[in-house]
Amino acid sequence: MIRYHFGFDDPSGTARRGKRLRPQLLLRVALAEGGAVESALGAAVAIEVLHNYSLVHDDIEDGDELRHGRPALWTRYGIAQGINAGDAMCALSYLALLDCEAGSPPERLARMARALHEANLGMCEGQGLDIAFEGRDAVSLDEYRAMVFGKTAALFGASCELGALSARASDARAAAYARMGRAYGVAFQVRDDVLGTWGSSAATGKPSGGDIARRKWTFPVVWALGQPACADRQIVAVAYGRRRRLDSAESLEVVAALERLGARAAADDAGDTALGEADRIAGEFDLDRERSIRDFLAQGARRVA
Amino acid sequence: MIRYHFGFDDPSGTARRGKRLRPQLLLRVALAEGGAVESALGAAVAIEVLHNYSLVHDDIEDGDELRHGRPALWTRYGIAQGINAGDAMCALSYLALLDCEAGSPPERLARMARALHEANLGMCEGQGLDIAFEGRDAVSLDEYRAMVFGKTAALFGASCELGALSARASDARAAAYARMGRAYGVAFQVRDDVLGTWGSSAATGKPSGGDIARRKWTFPVVWALGQPACADRQIVAVAYGRRRRLDSAESLEVVAALERLGARAAADDAGDTALGEADRIAGEFDLDRERSIRDFLAQGARRVA
Repeated sequence: MIRYHFGFDDPSGTARRGKRLRPQLLLRVALAEGGAVESALGAAVAIEVLHNYSLVHDDIEDGDELRHGRPALWTRYGIAQGINAGDAMCALSYLALLDCEAGSPPERLARMARALHEANLGMCEGQGLDIAFEGRDAVSLDEYRAMVFGKTAALFGASCELGALSARASDARAAAYARMGRAYGVAFQVRDDVLGTWGSSAATGKPSGGDIARRKWTFPVVWALGQPACADRQIVAVAYGRRRRLDSAESLEVVAALERLGARAAADDAGDTALGEADRIAGEFDLDRERSIRDFLAQGARRVA
Repeated sequence: MIRYHFGFDDPSGTARRGKRLRPQLLLRVALAEGGAVESALGAAVAIEVLHNYSLVHDDIEDGDELRHGRPALWTRYGIAQGINAGDAMCALSYLALLDCEAGSPPERLARMARALHEANLGMCEGQGLDIAFEGRDAVSLDEYRAMVFGKTAALFGASCELGALSARASDARAAAYARMGRAYGVAFQVRDDVLGTWGSSAATGKPSGGDIARRKWTFPVVWALGQPACADRQIVAVAYGRRRRLDSAESLEVVAALERLGARAAADDAGDTALGEADRIAGEFDLDRERSIRDFLAQGARRVA
């Protein structure tokens, strides 16, 4: 089942396997700090497997039947095996870290394990908010930020922190990389929200406008509902007040109203602000000296846009 | 939600909270090895929280709506929050170990973390078999043993291993305690199967004969279907061949047939064999010198019988 999820059992070899963004981020931080790829691989595997355990469970929790354009693990094997396979992936993530970093100083290994566990707990806190928001009529920007801080930023932060620790950076530098990574995570999630609203199905592997059809609390929607009353805001509010999935026409109407309200531009601004925060931290602590991490993320953003 | 699961939010204070068997086992091993309770508490908390994360997920996977006589976490908060709360408990388990054992030598802490993760992976492997067996017409005793080895024995083994490690026992002694604990786990599971078939609802907090109604592959059933053809064996085979939950009369008929076949006595024998294996390991490595662990488990068995 885990091989199926990762696309390893696809004889044609054409299964889409995700962008591997988090382990690439981790390896780039390790290199930027003078570390070797070899001594960061265990942590890179751990972070990717941990991310995928959360995807396997999120798909069940959100009722998403597709992942990368084919049936999600639970769609193919059922909810019971889906939960259990995700649990096994969570255990495998930690074992990958412990196995591959066995040569590290034990203090460092304990710090890395802690970073991974805290990121896992943060993801659960963010996902718990996301689920709790589902039946709500409104979500504030502060609540949205708390959700994103857990759901996405925690793991981006851990990716950067683990990369720095694997390169034996100081505790202070590793903590600064964690904060830089969390800022990148916020930027990534806001962009992901834009993609889930305006992105094409071919680029995301999910139905276009899918976040809107499922009335997800994305940045554009949360921002739009925080604006003064007007006809376009009302369109969004009425659609999100429904107690069911939106049909295609309703979703398109919401997307158009969001565009007219300027929600897309506001999301782009919010993403830029988060990127600016990452730049500020990098400047203050002299991180990412070659700007290879920032360039990588900017390139990745273009690729999926 | 986690407080609800543990019964901490019950104002009357009468919520049943489980037997805390695994942490008690862990603490008794620590004491038997000359350790202090204080230096084993983090591991004891970790093992109990890890066990409860598995219960929260198992209840969803098995469709069990009750736990300790009241609605299970998922029954009260829904499947999505139930999965997510279980995930958070898994993360909290490891953080409890890392926090409370922060004073331990890092090498030992890494070994303890590994024992916990491997037990988690073992539980997933056992639970995966359990789920896979649900649609089957037959399960062999070997398959049953593989399932129990993961589902129950892995965590009993880790309880004993962690207790020994927290008391700074040698690696060889800790490994022997792990094997002794796994043997106790097999004995415990076989007894739990007997309780799920013949135990009263008051003693187990679950419907009497519930394992049979849900056509679970318990030791008595697996053993009975491995016997030569006869009328009573046929009763069991026909009932387990149905593609639905058994009603009360059907369940009682199966329980009576199992009793006439001698399946209860066979289960008691299998439990005794596993206990004998635990005794053998204890004798070979001079474990549990005061027999306080064995006496505790024997007393616990009487209490729930």
